[in-house]
Amino acid sequence: MSGSARAVLDAESRATRDDHDALRLWLRLLATTLSVEAVVRQRLQARFSTTLARFDYLAQLERVPQGLRMRELSERLMVTGGNVTGLTDALASEGHVVRDPDPDDRRAFRVRLTPAGRRAFRAMAGEHEAWIVELFTGLSAHELAQLRALLGRIKRQVRATGGTI
Amino acid sequence: MSGSARAVLDAESRATRDDHDALRLWLRLLATTLSVEAVVRQRLQARFSTTLARFDYLAQLERVPQGLRMRELSERLMVTGGNVTGLTDALASEGHVVRDPDPDDRRAFRVRLTPAGRRAFRAMAGEHEAWIVELFTGLSAHELAQLRALLGRIKRQVRATGGTI
Repeated sequence: MSGSARAVLDAESRATRDDHDALRLWLRLLATTLSVEAVVRQRLQARFSTTLARFDYLAQLERVPQGLRMRELSERLMVTGGNVTGLTDALASEGHVVRDPDPDDRRAFRVRLTPAGRRAFRAMAGEHEAWIVELFTGLSAHELAQLRALLGRIKRQVRATGGTI
Repeated sequence: MSGSARAVLDAESRATRDDHDALRLWLRLLATTLSVEAVVRQRLQARFSTTLARFDYLAQLERVPQGLRMRELSERLMVTGGNVTGLTDALASEGHVVRDPDPDDRRAFRVRLTPAGRRAFRAMAGEHEAWIVELFTGLSAHELAQLRALLGRIKRQVRATGGTI
């Protein structure tokens, strides 16, 4: 694609000079996130024949040896319960997760990684981290920290105002 | 939720202190984007009974009076052709878009906004911009510009390396 006269068009291509600075920033934030995600999706498929949704699911469970309730998992993944149920079915049939009755709530289930699921995740996570380091390689440690701090302030603001419609 | 001892958990909650700075930044970038998107989704539904996918679709068309080919639209929206076909069917049945044969390619179609679609989009876009300004209000003009520049460098790096698996 380099050297091509064809413009790169993406989620940001609808921005115009008239748009407010905040809107232009949001469109760039969205386009940047989507472009990183697209590379990660493509590589997870090519290297591990898996999806980003499955990878994110395993990543959340990996931090919590005792497992998570389905509802907690939905919240952390920011997806609906229906999606989590479908992913759980798929990953359980592959032997990567198991569902146990929740000791604190007889009507609920907890999901946790199996040893095979943990091994599979760790293999993917090692490569995933290397991809991310590669994609963010243009920024210095200082710039990474600066960006992280600015994004943290947006995140807090969104949490503070987000609930009010 | 304010005053609650319950930790806020999201896409970033899987980050640990051991993770590489680039990975921690990526998880924050993802969590920030998802949190803004969640507010926008919720408000589009509450105010206009519409989805983010439809809003983004109309936003891309609004910049291009002569319309876009389905494939161009897929690229800009960063979604698959199947999704664009489904969205086009839904928006056409509401009278917001029309499909015309492409004058440059008899096997292809172009999609463009109808006047009603343009009016509907503009009403939504005005409120959408106000929401984004509100959500990003914690940052100064200088910080918005700084963030935009840093994200632009990541986006370029991703484009430069993304194609290679």
